[in-house]
Amino acid sequence: MGIALKKTDQKQPIEQLASLVEDGMSQVNDLIAERMQSPIGMIPDLAAHLVDAGGKRLRPMITLATSQILGVSGDNPIKLATAVEFIHSATLLHDDIVDGSELRRGKTAANRLWGNSASILVGDFLFARSFSLMVETGHIGVLGILSKASAVIAEGEVHQLAVIGNVDLPIKEYMKIIEAKTAELFAAAASVSAVIAGAPDKQQQALDSFGRCLGLTFQLIDDALDYSGNDDLLGKHTGDDFREGKLTLPLLLAYRKADADTQKWWQQVLEADTRNDDDLAKAIQLINQSGALEETLSQARKFALQAQTSLEIFEQSPIRDCLMELCDFLVQRRS
Amino acid sequence: MGIALKKTDQKQPIEQLASLVEDGMSQVNDLIAERMQSPIGMIPDLAAHLVDAGGKRLRPMITLATSQILGVSGDNPIKLATAVEFIHSATLLHDDIVDGSELRRGKTAANRLWGNSASILVGDFLFARSFSLMVETGHIGVLGILSKASAVIAEGEVHQLAVIGNVDLPIKEYMKIIEAKTAELFAAAASVSAVIAGAPDKQQQALDSFGRCLGLTFQLIDDALDYSGNDDLLGKHTGDDFREGKLTLPLLLAYRKADADTQKWWQQVLEADTRNDDDLAKAIQLINQSGALEETLSQARKFALQAQTSLEIFEQSPIRDCLMELCDFLVQRRS
Repeated sequence: MGIALKKTDQKQPIEQLASLVEDGMSQVNDLIAERMQSPIGMIPDLAAHLVDAGGKRLRPMITLATSQILGVSGDNPIKLATAVEFIHSATLLHDDIVDGSELRRGKTAANRLWGNSASILVGDFLFARSFSLMVETGHIGVLGILSKASAVIAEGEVHQLAVIGNVDLPIKEYMKIIEAKTAELFAAAASVSAVIAGAPDKQQQALDSFGRCLGLTFQLIDDALDYSGNDDLLGKHTGDDFREGKLTLPLLLAYRKADADTQKWWQQVLEADTRNDDDLAKAIQLINQSGALEETLSQARKFALQAQTSLEIFEQSPIRDCLMELCDFLVQRRS
Repeated sequence: MGIALKKTDQKQPIEQLASLVEDGMSQVNDLIAERMQSPIGMIPDLAAHLVDAGGKRLRPMITLATSQILGVSGDNPIKLATAVEFIHSATLLHDDIVDGSELRRGKTAANRLWGNSASILVGDFLFARSFSLMVETGHIGVLGILSKASAVIAEGEVHQLAVIGNVDLPIKEYMKIIEAKTAELFAAAASVSAVIAGAPDKQQQALDSFGRCLGLTFQLIDDALDYSGNDDLLGKHTGDDFREGKLTLPLLLAYRKADADTQKWWQQVLEADTRNDDDLAKAIQLINQSGALEETLSQARKFALQAQTSLEIFEQSPIRDCLMELCDFLVQRRS
């Protein structure tokens, strides 16, 4: 395949981050396990299926890291990091229904095992529990940030739903969708720590910008990997986005660069109810030929750089430098 | 049919309540319309389909009424009442998917028109917006009450899902389910005003108890009406609960009083995938013969009395008396 990703020891920067926030994450993991409990056994069973499958836990680690940068310790960063992961988990449970996904984190999606109804309701439960955790911090500003983020995420998802099949979607509109459905929660995860730290607005805005740009980087690379990734590493099938008819940047760019006949092919294949392996092979070939993956990567690199620049107002420290390296790492990741 | 409901001018006590909180409700209706707006047109369209269908708006009226009892005025009661109605609307959108309902408030259920995905996401959106409204009041205690209530509601819904088809369900467990899925939000709607009023704990507990008992009354009468109501008045089909295989108090009581053969019939009919009109006719006949409706009404009356007693610690006033009359009215309602 044509995508030019540098070979690196890929786990290093994430592992470095994990070790810098190790104590906090161990408490976050305990609190996640504690707060998804309920006398109604189906709730912890279903929640554990998703949560125990792991995932990178990138969002809560970012909350702990920015709390560390601002010098906040104690229970509040732990509670906020857990709240952020609960909102993320709730959106995953609901998204898997919306997207009709079969896999999540390499395991059968929860709604395929427990049904859509249970997944909807357990998502609602985690969402509610997330807000209870925020209340425990006593900082109402935190609830302001994360309730707004949750509304924006839902808006982004509905926006995505509304443009299904519209392969002529303006790139600007696509960028708005991923900013809402992905980057907003990263921005909130990074900036809530400023509220509990009582940090000045300038610092809160810098952390918001860092999280937002990191989130955009993350999503664009996710989009690219779906046309170039390795099934085992990604924990989802390569081509899932295409099979679901999901519009992502590589596809939108390839369409814009295509001749009239190829554009017609894209339209027809995306209007169809299903897309088979031959369709996927052709889509991958067209996307690679068009240079759309390189352009997607270049966009991702631009946002990674912006994320790094946002952190420059903070004093140099091991945790700040680690977050900066994380930006480069996310561009280079292959899983 | 055997159910003995007094003929009354049924709208009177609700209309009386509506006129006592008229100014506030007009602001609530404006705020509902304002806060369900979004640049993503599908969101206000879908939300308006549900919200404009009306419904009794009982929960926000209760928030305004208890605020009036405690002497709180200004924007905060309006924001809280709107937040409560948004949580209620979000749960209706999600419940209609879970229950597979065809109708809601006499109109086609939103998910039948826009699809399950849009209904899930717009529910999430309204839920998030509800918390943003609470944040605007500046009272974090309000978020504590309503986030806990939201988790309990979701728990109750999952609990209900987990016992589908279990006609031998203990009555105590059934009462726990309706307390969670219905009464908890009434309790929150009635007691949040104590937080913004800075009222003593004793008053907050009394309002919680009032709302909780009123909610139980409301749900038990809803259960009874499903086996005795009039389609036009109820805004849903008589027999919906039975057709969906939903266990409610009249059914559980009738089963307990039935002989072995009849119990077998109940088990078989509830284990089946669908239930037809003949099944419904037989179910109604069995429930009427068993005295289960009278017993359900008697339970509802007991809770109505408890709700009234809870209000006795407050000084006599037109709004307090109106809430007391509302308790009787809910027992007598036929729609």
